[in-house]
Amino acid sequence: MKAVILAGGSGERFWPISTPEKPKQFLNVFGGESLIRQSVSRLAGVVSPEDIFIITSADLVKATRKELPEVPRKNIVGEPMRRDTGAAVSLGVSVAGEGVIGVFSADQMVMDVKAFRKTLKVAEKAARREDKIVTLGIKPTFPATGFGYINPKSGAFVEKPDLRRAKAYIRKGYLWNAGMFIARSEVFRAAFAKFAPELVDVRVKDYPKLEKISFDYAVMEALSRESGVKVIPCNCGWDDVGSYGAFDKYFPHDSRGNVREGPCTVVEAENNICVARSARISLLGVKDLVVVTTPDYVLVASKDRLGEMKKLFRK
Amino acid sequence: MKAVILAGGSGERFWPISTPEKPKQFLNVFGGESLIRQSVSRLAGVVSPEDIFIITSADLVKATRKELPEVPRKNIVGEPMRRDTGAAVSLGVSVAGEGVIGVFSADQMVMDVKAFRKTLKVAEKAARREDKIVTLGIKPTFPATGFGYINPKSGAFVEKPDLRRAKAYIRKGYLWNAGMFIARSEVFRAAFAKFAPELVDVRVKDYPKLEKISFDYAVMEALSRESGVKVIPCNCGWDDVGSYGAFDKYFPHDSRGNVREGPCTVVEAENNICVARSARISLLGVKDLVVVTTPDYVLVASKDRLGEMKKLFRK
Repeated sequence: MKAVILAGGSGERFWPISTPEKPKQFLNVFGGESLIRQSVSRLAGVVSPEDIFIITSADLVKATRKELPEVPRKNIVGEPMRRDTGAAVSLGVSVAGEGVIGVFSADQMVMDVKAFRKTLKVAEKAARREDKIVTLGIKPTFPATGFGYINPKSGAFVEKPDLRRAKAYIRKGYLWNAGMFIARSEVFRAAFAKFAPELVDVRVKDYPKLEKISFDYAVMEALSRESGVKVIPCNCGWDDVGSYGAFDKYFPHDSRGNVREGPCTVVEAENNICVARSARISLLGVKDLVVVTTPDYVLVASKDRLGEMKKLFRK
Repeated sequence: MKAVILAGGSGERFWPISTPEKPKQFLNVFGGESLIRQSVSRLAGVVSPEDIFIITSADLVKATRKELPEVPRKNIVGEPMRRDTGAAVSLGVSVAGEGVIGVFSADQMVMDVKAFRKTLKVAEKAARREDKIVTLGIKPTFPATGFGYINPKSGAFVEKPDLRRAKAYIRKGYLWNAGMFIARSEVFRAAFAKFAPELVDVRVKDYPKLEKISFDYAVMEALSRESGVKVIPCNCGWDDVGSYGAFDKYFPHDSRGNVREGPCTVVEAENNICVARSARISLLGVKDLVVVTTPDYVLVASKDRLGEMKKLFRK
């Protein structure tokens, strides 16, 4: 089995500790190793390093090669511009060549790597046998509104729901769409040809003329309506490391619910995420904030507004 | 008339832009000049520079002399340790010598300097004539709980009230105690002798054995009960620059009530005080905060907890 890892993050959601030059896949806050390092390591025993392909942005190729010395240099390919996951999956399939290919993202955590590898082998077998795109469905642990869902029976994809719908999906046994797709290369190509012909066999030189469209939207939603998707449940402690909210999940809290990384003085403050990468942070009487310092920037955001981080860059 | 200016601030309430090494009287955020510079300048025409005496902490003597070149070097006296205003007033009276002496604080703003000088001349005359300590009473502009009050008829001093009492004081015509006292040196000495004999004619060498006690508590409260205080109202736009809350009074606000000094990006944030002295501050969706950056520290405090700043230093 081969693997394509999408690692094109722009760094906005973990700004200012991540930046366009050092986006979150290079952060080593989660589990000591960078997210991209973990993404490769968890494939050990399932995919050989020479069969791993990384699609990243052109200006991160050098840093990615340094971070992943066991992956052949030519397997690490830079996109000249961002064209969303539709183009990136197709480019990955193009460079990976023939055989069963698994598509993954570098922005994810998997707590139970053993279970993940086991499920992946099951998925590989299914992909070898069936003309479908196999997707791993994660058993939800809460009614998330930040993930898409999959109906495991029909394979139907549904978009990020509101809270009421999320609860209904969980009652119905829907799974989270983790963005992990396994299929033979010709099955990927046929799906592109049918639903997004402009994305067949994308190469780097094609990027300027492509539109931005996600792989889910371009291919998977339509394919799932035609029974072209097979869902394999995966109970592996998966999570998307989407924003600073992840600190609340993966770091220990003090007795008042604060997460602290680096020098933070906290007085009568509750449920804050405090990440000090340069100056010492002192919190007094505040709650539900994310406070992050770097030598150049200080972010002070309300936790419930983290989804709007991009607004800071439009100013 | 001579003047004693108490300038012993410890820098805690404006930390981290002020520090023990550079306390708030050296800050130039209010009106362009430092507070101690303003305190001296506003006495022009009433007190000659050679009759101005500054009581500060020993390690600030050098900086104070530099900031106030027109004040004779010997008039700037350093306290070896902090012993509150009781000791500082007595030391000031000791070094100032004979005549009418006005005692002031370096932590104050006066918006209408002309009115202040006029009132001061009236107070000087009264002090020359009467064996009382003359105090300037400020007409309140709101029911402050952070200031003491004075009954202008009896001269009685009352301590910082709660909000209900503050409102009652305003109805009764009480004035704010601005900590400005004018009297002949022998009247100060007699008051110390009567109510706080251990504070008569304090010299620097006496400090180690003195207790910490405020001048109001050691002398003025008792003196006011014996009709030894004369109150002269002063309508001069006075304010104590006690904490970051002063930024809300003296700086312009943007359309959402934020005060910004230095590079601050503000997105859907309201009524914050944002002081960027090193890294750029980005606020997202937060309100009623004070956020201050210096190269070494970042303060994030709830506005309504500014009175508890000291707790940050006990950690």
